[in-house]
Amino acid sequence: MLEIQGIAVSQGIAFANAYCLKEPDLSYEEIKVADVDAELERFKVAVMKTKAELQEIYEIAQKKFGAEKAAIFAAHLLVLEDPEMLASIEAKIQSGVNAEFALDEVSNMFIALFKGLDNVYMQERVADIRDVSKRVLAHLLGVEMVDMNRLTSDVIIVAKDLTPSMTAMLDTKYVKGFITDIGGKTSHSAILARTLEIPAVVGTKNATEDIQHGAPIIIDGTNGKIIVNATTEVSNFYLQQQRLHIEEHEELIQYRTLPSLSADGCSVEIAGNIGKPEDVEIVINAGGDGIGLFRTEFLYMERQELPTEEEQFQAYKNVLEKMQGKPTIVRTLDIGGDKNLPYLKLADEMNPFLGYRAIRISLTQQEMFRVQLRALLRASAYGNLKIMFPMIATLDEFKMAKAILLEEKQSLTSDGYLISETLEVGMMIEIPSAAIIADLFAKEVDFFSIGTNDLIQYTLAADRMNENVSYLYQPYHPAVLRLIKNVIDAAQRQGKWVGMCGEMAADEIALPILLGFGLNEFSMSASSILKTRAHIAKLSKQQLMTHNERILLLSTSAEVEEYVKKNLLS
Amino acid sequence: MLEIQGIAVSQGIAFANAYCLKEPDLSYEEIKVADVDAELERFKVAVMKTKAELQEIYEIAQKKFGAEKAAIFAAHLLVLEDPEMLASIEAKIQSGVNAEFALDEVSNMFIALFKGLDNVYMQERVADIRDVSKRVLAHLLGVEMVDMNRLTSDVIIVAKDLTPSMTAMLDTKYVKGFITDIGGKTSHSAILARTLEIPAVVGTKNATEDIQHGAPIIIDGTNGKIIVNATTEVSNFYLQQQRLHIEEHEELIQYRTLPSLSADGCSVEIAGNIGKPEDVEIVINAGGDGIGLFRTEFLYMERQELPTEEEQFQAYKNVLEKMQGKPTIVRTLDIGGDKNLPYLKLADEMNPFLGYRAIRISLTQQEMFRVQLRALLRASAYGNLKIMFPMIATLDEFKMAKAILLEEKQSLTSDGYLISETLEVGMMIEIPSAAIIADLFAKEVDFFSIGTNDLIQYTLAADRMNENVSYLYQPYHPAVLRLIKNVIDAAQRQGKWVGMCGEMAADEIALPILLGFGLNEFSMSASSILKTRAHIAKLSKQQLMTHNERILLLSTSAEVEEYVKKNLLS
Repeated sequence: MLEIQGIAVSQGIAFANAYCLKEPDLSYEEIKVADVDAELERFKVAVMKTKAELQEIYEIAQKKFGAEKAAIFAAHLLVLEDPEMLASIEAKIQSGVNAEFALDEVSNMFIALFKGLDNVYMQERVADIRDVSKRVLAHLLGVEMVDMNRLTSDVIIVAKDLTPSMTAMLDTKYVKGFITDIGGKTSHSAILARTLEIPAVVGTKNATEDIQHGAPIIIDGTNGKIIVNATTEVSNFYLQQQRLHIEEHEELIQYRTLPSLSADGCSVEIAGNIGKPEDVEIVINAGGDGIGLFRTEFLYMERQELPTEEEQFQAYKNVLEKMQGKPTIVRTLDIGGDKNLPYLKLADEMNPFLGYRAIRISLTQQEMFRVQLRALLRASAYGNLKIMFPMIATLDEFKMAKAILLEEKQSLTSDGYLISETLEVGMMIEIPSAAIIADLFAKEVDFFSIGTNDLIQYTLAADRMNENVSYLYQPYHPAVLRLIKNVIDAAQRQGKWVGMCGEMAADEIALPILLGFGLNEFSMSASSILKTRAHIAKLSKQQLMTHNERILLLSTSAEVEEYVKKNLLS
Repeated sequence: MLEIQGIAVSQGIAFANAYCLKEPDLSYEEIKVADVDAELERFKVAVMKTKAELQEIYEIAQKKFGAEKAAIFAAHLLVLEDPEMLASIEAKIQSGVNAEFALDEVSNMFIALFKGLDNVYMQERVADIRDVSKRVLAHLLGVEMVDMNRLTSDVIIVAKDLTPSMTAMLDTKYVKGFITDIGGKTSHSAILARTLEIPAVVGTKNATEDIQHGAPIIIDGTNGKIIVNATTEVSNFYLQQQRLHIEEHEELIQYRTLPSLSADGCSVEIAGNIGKPEDVEIVINAGGDGIGLFRTEFLYMERQELPTEEEQFQAYKNVLEKMQGKPTIVRTLDIGGDKNLPYLKLADEMNPFLGYRAIRISLTQQEMFRVQLRALLRASAYGNLKIMFPMIATLDEFKMAKAILLEEKQSLTSDGYLISETLEVGMMIEIPSAAIIADLFAKEVDFFSIGTNDLIQYTLAADRMNENVSYLYQPYHPAVLRLIKNVIDAAQRQGKWVGMCGEMAADEIALPILLGFGLNEFSMSASSILKTRAHIAKLSKQQLMTHNERILLLSTSAEVEEYVKKNLLS
């Protein structure tokens, strides 16, 4: 039995076999081959097996994820039909080298050839050739390839990290948990796990080294523990824990259809954050009052060119219709920082978090921005849409963004499109400058949404992804609390409402403070919605408000935590 | 005639020949040589010429900069005495190849050999071999090498960028100006030029391409212009401008010995920022009331190991004695961010400006910090020392840093050292969180010094070195002004004083605002001191104060600038 400790990022307990996403060892030696015919035969068999495998994956992918996402495997099959490439490899084998060497040499030549062409389509072919020759090489070497999209039984994924593209093909029917070597509370994989409501442990450092593919493991996402080859005793303990967790969950289920009210009857909105249209159902299932943050980056990622107005319109309309009139806040494109779009050709930056990103890109690459705004405006007729702009630092930026939106609205209206009359336009508060002059912004916006992940890292000047300074990622730092209070007060004086869509909105310590400060909307991972509603139902807002002044004078994060535990949660 | 426009970063006009710091073209072909003896002779001549050249540079350097800095050229000479290396090259030539190829092959072999050894001394030898073989190669090819340390006539340096190490050997007797391709108002070379009071133009993009080595140029550091091969007419125009600039300067000279007073008799302190002990004289010559920022990084840079307590003590004592009782604020080590120390082996970071730097390093690598504090405490007996900590984000950090200082003070006192009884301990305000809770810090510190360069970039979440977002580096952003006002008010309520050591302290628009807000100390490049004193002498502080409330309600940087021009400067 082996116990591994990591960072707990998504609650729950699961039992399944480890599914290690490790790069297989495809090393080989160059060998002179005497029996050329046998070598040719060996190569043909490997190609045949690869074709059969790709065909199978293609069919599974088509069934599970639809034709669009499966198309990549059709493209892979085409590589194996390319007579020129196959002939070159066979000719090489006939010169007396082993098939592995011949395959590698020829595919590298083709890759170099395509790479030289300045053409996005050809660049994509490079990735195809690389993937396919790896598969053939694996068959030649008798090495098993790991295919996350060919799952047929329950697994717990073990990987160095899970990138957004790796998770695109994820089958939640079989994936019962995540374990990653790197990452923290706010990394992609952590957020994804909470969205999917499956347990996850990140930052284990060596899990991919320590856990064998196929080993039976238990993941405890509540305490950040992983048990490999558990003894019967330990297994039984976790079975009981799992039962308790499920019971707790069932207790929360009663809140699914209840309104979000504090103990003294004050109404708030508890909404969900989503990254893809498919996630809407998870928020609805969790009883969310709305969508507090719909990240639109997914529409732009994993493709070779910008999405069209029509594609975006369909995606937004789809979400709005599913939300059936419940508030749905869409954030315009927040690319840059740690999220890149290769086809935009953004320059590498020394400090990407302080760089050219989000609204800064939208305001300079206006045509891209206008396409998104037109799609959103057209979709507004199908639900309760609110639009917000990310990374606003100056009043000029907000005014310019809003002016562009109004221009597009006018143009669409005169083209005869129906646009919602009640569409609200707001902004993220995630840069200190915006929080400090919230009074000036409050006159211009319909609402604020406080993005605490970025706001905290800029206010403390500490990259939340950097382990050496992660101790400075302090949601309860008095400066952060003062900024939040300032934003809420400024909005209320102008009769505007304030939401929060960072991790802090679902934090147990922060919750009573935020409720007392007067925050109107709490938006979070779907998995936190019910727990938050249950928590708020036990708190009296009027009572909490009497603590505001004292909280704002506390000196450190630790003092705040202690104060809340002693006075607000007891 | 060619006119180039860049960013004006240091005022003044100069006429001199361009001195281009371009990498010389040392490319060569591998050639089979029949007359081996002639080739050997050619190699020996090149080595001899290189030795003579190095000897000459060594002597010049020793005279100009002292034995310590000249030592590097002695080390270079030793490379040419290494019998093993010379014999290897000669053997290679005897095999029938040209000397260039033989030299390059053998020196690369030696470089690879030394590189493999995990030893700082050997690493340093790699650099020596590289430099020396370049010199020999240049002599073989008949290419002239550029030696900034062998200047004998007035020049204007033209370079891609000037790094701190490149400027270490700079001879201000002959360098009359700087022109760089990259950089902005706050880059190293810009700050250096202002310290040296020589005109500089940065961010020209292509100056190194457009300007020929040796070409006669005019640099106009006031307007960011460079004229290459000026016509007589243009030359005369700039001669007149230069005369005007000198006259203006002479008018300012009367302020050298005057106290720093506003028109209504309010006293402030106008101090200088320095990066090296030698810069003290420049501040004294410019009539500075003190040193508002003594950066201590220079002590740690361009060496292989940490400076000892004794070395640091001598440096601090030296500065304090020269300042003759005038206030001297020393900032503890601010390494990390864009300044690295190879021997500390700091990890590469995704966002170094939001990373492990300054006090964050000092508090975790405490022994290094304690050595610096001990040196400072011992030096405190020799002048009017004030110590400040950089990059404080939380109250805990300041308290911990101060506790360590007091521990060292106690230990030194019990060892019989004399420590100043009036030593003040303060902190930089350069992180938004610190500015926001300045009221809490004000109870703990003796003073604040606002570092606007960093404060602005964190408040607006925009890297000031990144050209794509440099429009967001807004000193007059209402949020920045509110933070500054908050810091000053918080300090005054506790009877503490506030200085500023960013570029903003010498900004003409910011000056009346800061004076009105009640800033006590303005610290800047020496070259700005007199101008600032003259400017303040014309402003009435009482009058300016009546504008504070209105200024704090302005909406944008542009509105602030307009307001100041209309109401405070007319």
